[in-house]
Amino acid sequence: MALAAASRVLLHAGSRLGRREVVDGARRFANKQVLVETEDAAGIAVMKFRNPPVNSLSLEFLTEFVISLEKLENDKTFRGVILTSDLPGIFSAGLDLREMYGRNPAHYAEFWKAVQELWLRLYMSKLMLVSAINGASPAGGCLIALTSDYRIMADNPKYIIGLNESLLGIIAPFWLKDTFVNTIGHRAAERALQLGMLFPPAEALKVGVVDEVVPEDQIHSKARSVMAQWLAIPDHSRQLTKSMMRKATADKLIKQREADIQNVVSFISQDSIQKSLHVYLKKLKQKRG
Amino acid sequence: MALAAASRVLLHAGSRLGRREVVDGARRFANKQVLVETEDAAGIAVMKFRNPPVNSLSLEFLTEFVISLEKLENDKTFRGVILTSDLPGIFSAGLDLREMYGRNPAHYAEFWKAVQELWLRLYMSKLMLVSAINGASPAGGCLIALTSDYRIMADNPKYIIGLNESLLGIIAPFWLKDTFVNTIGHRAAERALQLGMLFPPAEALKVGVVDEVVPEDQIHSKARSVMAQWLAIPDHSRQLTKSMMRKATADKLIKQREADIQNVVSFISQDSIQKSLHVYLKKLKQKRG
Amino acid sequence: MALAAASRVLLHAGSRLGRREVVDGARRFANKQVLVETEDAAGIAVMKFRNPPVNSLSLEFLTEFVISLEKLENDKTFRGVILTSDLPGIFSAGLDLREMYGRNPAHYAEFWKAVQELWLRLYMSKLMLVSAINGASPAGGCLIALTSDYRIMADNPKYIIGLNESLLGIIAPFWLKDTFVNTIGHRAAERALQLGMLFPPAEALKVGVVDEVVPEDQIHSKARSVMAQWLAIPDHSRQLTKSMMRKATADKLIKQREADIQNVVSFISQDSIQKSLHVYLKKLKQKRG
Repeated sequence: MALAAASRVLLHAGSRLGRREVVDGARRFANKQVLVETEDAAGIAVMKFRNPPVNSLSLEFLTEFVISLEKLENDKTFRGVILTSDLPGIFSAGLDLREMYGRNPAHYAEFWKAVQELWLRLYMSKLMLVSAINGASPAGGCLIALTSDYRIMADNPKYIIGLNESLLGIIAPFWLKDTFVNTIGHRAAERALQLGMLFPPAEALKVGVVDEVVPEDQIHSKARSVMAQWLAIPDHSRQLTKSMMRKATADKLIKQREADIQNVVSFISQDSIQKSLHVYLKKLKQKRG
Repeated sequence: MALAAASRVLLHAGSRLGRREVVDGARRFANKQVLVETEDAAGIAVMKFRNPPVNSLSLEFLTEFVISLEKLENDKTFRGVILTSDLPGIFSAGLDLREMYGRNPAHYAEFWKAVQELWLRLYMSKLMLVSAINGASPAGGCLIALTSDYRIMADNPKYIIGLNESLLGIIAPFWLKDTFVNTIGHRAAERALQLGMLFPPAEALKVGVVDEVVPEDQIHSKARSVMAQWLAIPDHSRQLTKSMMRKATADKLIKQREADIQNVVSFISQDSIQKSLHVYLKKLKQKRG
Repeated sequence: MALAAASRVLLHAGSRLGRREVVDGARRFANKQVLVETEDAAGIAVMKFRNPPVNSLSLEFLTEFVISLEKLENDKTFRGVILTSDLPGIFSAGLDLREMYGRNPAHYAEFWKAVQELWLRLYMSKLMLVSAINGASPAGGCLIALTSDYRIMADNPKYIIGLNESLLGIIAPFWLKDTFVNTIGHRAAERALQLGMLFPPAEALKVGVVDEVVPEDQIHSKARSVMAQWLAIPDHSRQLTKSMMRKATADKLIKQREADIQNVVSFISQDSIQKSLHVYLKKLKQKRG
């Protein structure tokens, strides 16, 4: 009862946040980049990423994602969430590099804090999270998938998943590295991170980046049946077990969150990194016309 | 020489313990639940669990198990022990939940300390331990198997092994989780613990819960041949290596043993957990007639 | 520019060291046990072990190895190194046990420090290291291979690789154990270390001790193509990622380097260990005629 009351207050706070954004003239946070479809009877929600063209993780997208997740987290109707894309062929292309190029240190710090926040919220969510990876999922897209409790990938050889930061001249943060090691083991992570490996579905399954590969038209039904299987477990056992498995990894970031932000800010503020990003963004622009 | 003298003293102490129990009118600790058959020439002993109907790990059973193990540990005749069941179709059904239901906190604390003790003694044993898993082995049964140096399972699809605590609304303790992670890796452990997965032999082998699956009638001969292979290694090298691999995991519990007891006591003292256990024990009773 | 100047100074220091050895009448450090063939255009060097009959890691060999590696490390021409053997059928037989038998504690300490140094330099090298394992590679030979970024083994069933210390009555140091766990996982390492397992190529590949097995006549071309693939990654990303993956493991030794030396010195100074080594060295001598 106390919990229910608390969650209503929190939901209300969430709604106020949403409204305030609209009042300010921005509809940006008003659930437009992350569609939330609820299936109350089943106790689940589906979060669909819709930030064309490639579901880049911009500051706006990250903020909306976290707020939407928090609402679901605090509403006891919901026990599980399916994460998927509303755009064809892309799950998420990862961090919006425009947030890391040509801005000031304060912006980089704000952006990185939002990236950390998304990871922390997803990785330690008490909701059961399934990623239905229905498109390419490099870097930050893979980050989202890795935080889930279960990963299903559509069997389309054009889709790839992995942490390819090194290809762009940057590096994955230590906590994402830790998540990767927890998922595929130390050696496979070391090799994949150094080479920036992007795996097609069959290889992703083999190395353990995803748990299951299914025909593309079955990914959503599969996500629902997996969800049902996991929700058959009493919530408190599932949640305490999840926390026991992941808390040490999350605490490592929590203990040095500010230092991690400062590291990233000074790294991406370097001329050489800014130049790399400039070249990369220019190429990307030309490619997209 | 000093070691031999010391072990004789300890064996004597052990015998006195056994005798005292008999004097008190209880034959419970007098090697009746854990049969110990010694093969002095080979330097090995076989411990056979016989606590019908399902080799539940009651306080009595745990106490007798630890005393018997300590005796073997302190007798330099013995270098290895085969752990197996004397009952058909069951290795061990795990903790005796009656020890965790309807008792007072002092009893829960005593019981849990005995569970910790069994794990510590087995996991850090200087004896080479082989589990010959000749029956179902859920929860605490799996705990015993996981502490061994080698696990052989009888190829009977009716037998299952795993940590299914979450199915009962409870959770595995952190040190058992650590043992599981050490054995099958972080990701496989996370999934198996959250879902309370019980694996038939072929799957147990695939995920790494057991090292080998053999036809049921060959399990004891196989255990002996594996034992011979391991005992070909000089004891001090084998023991120092085992300690190097496992000490950090054992120390984690040793450092917070009392806190772990308090956690468990307050967890199982909760009304909701007591209710779950009541329902479960009632079902079990009906099932067994 | 500063870096280039610094590396020239260091190279010069290295050359002076080399010269001094020659002046002293000893050609031992003058690049005779570790041949270095440079391929400047490709930015790579090949280090070929030539310490007949079995590339034992003597104090001299270790010292020359570290000095040669340091030179390459400090010359910005070089981005990667291939480690291989110049002797047929043997990569390296591991530590020269004569350095650990019948000497005084000061010698044992000096020798062990050199072993630690080799591991630290190789494991944390900013160069991309490929081991082209063209022969047997037990114990210290396996140590060298394990520190590399990639391991290719010649497909010859007579070749074996693994940490077989326990077979000799000794144990692998904790930092080598950590390297092994990082490479093949905790359970596989526990079993292999206790049993002193030596794997032929196919099994080494299966358990993850090596990354690839190729026909013996293709090992050097394969090493070059793997090197090219890894050097396609920007150096700073590759190096920072490698450091992030390995630093915690290296720091564990750095923090207790002196204690580790003292442990080893008192372990191998024991009469029983000296006797084991005596027996083993005698056998070895007889075997070699």
